[in-house]
Amino acid sequence: MVQDISFADIKVSDKASMTKTVSEYDVYTFAGLTGDFNPVHVNAEFAKNTMFKERIAHGMLSAGFISSVLGTTLPGANTIYLKQELSFKAPVKIGDTVTATVEVIEKIEEKHRLILRTTVINQDGILVVDGKATVMKK
Amino acid sequence: MVQDISFADIKVSDKASMTKTVSEYDVYTFAGLTGDFNPVHVNAEFAKNTMFKERIAHGMLSAGFISSVLGTTLPGANTIYLKQELSFKAPVKIGDTVTATVEVIEKIEEKHRLILRTTVINQDGILVVDGKATVMKK
Amino acid sequence: MVQDISFADIKVSDKASMTKTVSEYDVYTFAGLTGDFNPVHVNAEFAKNTMFKERIAHGMLSAGFISSVLGTTLPGANTIYLKQELSFKAPVKIGDTVTATVEVIEKIEEKHRLILRTTVINQDGILVVDGKATVMKK
Amino acid sequence: MVQDISFADIKVSDKASMTKTVSEYDVYTFAGLTGDFNPVHVNAEFAKNTMFKERIAHGMLSAGFISSVLGTTLPGANTIYLKQELSFKAPVKIGDTVTATVEVIEKIEEKHRLILRTTVINQDGILVVDGKATVMKK
Repeated sequence: MVQDISFADIKVSDKASMTKTVSEYDVYTFAGLTGDFNPVHVNAEFAKNTMFKERIAHGMLSAGFISSVLGTTLPGANTIYLKQELSFKAPVKIGDTVTATVEVIEKIEEKHRLILRTTVINQDGILVVDGKATVMKK
Repeated sequence: MVQDISFADIKVSDKASMTKTVSEYDVYTFAGLTGDFNPVHVNAEFAKNTMFKERIAHGMLSAGFISSVLGTTLPGANTIYLKQELSFKAPVKIGDTVTATVEVIEKIEEKHRLILRTTVINQDGILVVDGKATVMKK
Repeated sequence: MVQDISFADIKVSDKASMTKTVSEYDVYTFAGLTGDFNPVHVNAEFAKNTMFKERIAHGMLSAGFISSVLGTTLPGANTIYLKQELSFKAPVKIGDTVTATVEVIEKIEEKHRLILRTTVINQDGILVVDGKATVMKK
Repeated sequence: MVQDISFADIKVSDKASMTKTVSEYDVYTFAGLTGDFNPVHVNAEFAKNTMFKERIAHGMLSAGFISSVLGTTLPGANTIYLKQELSFKAPVKIGDTVTATVEVIEKIEEKHRLILRTTVINQDGILVVDGKATVMKK
């Protein structure tokens, strides 16, 4: 489940991803961990009157899927997470199936660092989160 | 519990924060939501031999506390999260008590946007996450 | 996120509330914490033949929302919970959106105590829990 | 696990109880369900400086154990919870083992109602919650 690719074996344009259907359980548990009871996440009546028309997931939950791919697959174990930039582009609704992908766009040999483009798309191919990660791989 | 401050009432240098002692439960639940079973988070034997000497929390969990303050307090309800930059500066260990703080550093009147510095510190005042959020407040 | 209003600043008729759509996750997690596997909560087949026709939430979960408002907002931090009277008036079904409200009805200056009316209503305005709390605010 | 004693078979002085060691998991999950992030529950640094010296459980979690005994054992299935009075007498710390007991103190034949004394004690026999429940048994 958790890979540990050596830095030498990682090439620019290597990619990895994970997919999960976001459930009410995910959203409510994330609210419970963080205390983020913003009504757009946990109040269906309020959410009806928003531009989204229904409850949406926390953006940082989608970001969690990015960090999961980094931490389990590319580069996997022995990764040190240094930086993450996130742009939240579209909402994730309960029931949406999202795919988080990381792609190596730059390799900084002397520092053992990687820069990766990090994206999350939904089942319709709509980009919901865009961004860039910087990690160090031991 | 969830505040809803009007955009007009928000001023540069306004601040809000939340504090939580990060428990094993938090780390394991976050691992379960995201699938991030990186051994540094869920394998105590592996973690002993890392520079951290013990299991550490997912950086994105600390980021979740930032998003919680944005979504519940400043600016609270009716906030649209646009961007987040994160720098992970130091580890959060199980049992650490972290405080996430957001501080308005710029107000863009015409677009109803705010830029906030977002930090997470531990019980010793050590900066564990630094960053910047951009939100729109309706 | 958690407020800490001074006793002196609290007035009779001050109010605070929180709202959550009660999900199956909430009901099942509450069952798991307390062991209350009464079939009306976790057995959909049994629940079909009850007067409610479907599974309902534990009354004490709604009471938990009352205690949350007391503990986070009014009077918030440094509140000592002394007493709570609860009357369960109507069921909360999975998917209902409930609002718990506390309202100061009496201030006992010399003892730093407050008596609050505590109610929970659903999305149709039906009173599901009525009651009264006594707290001490340091 | 869930009993269903007939009303006719219930006598004044019948008793039932349940016992659970309250874990950090219980407290954090209850905080997550209800949004009650009061620092006395989730902030170990804050809790050090309170009269309790450490994090304590939500009082309403102990009340949940009472409702669990009512809903699973005495009177068990087909119980309708009408009223509950609670007095919070002493704190429950993480790691405490609490026993919730209900005892029938009055039987109202014509209405199929029972009044029960409801108590929660800790491992040292200290009364942490006292109170009285009114239920209808079909």
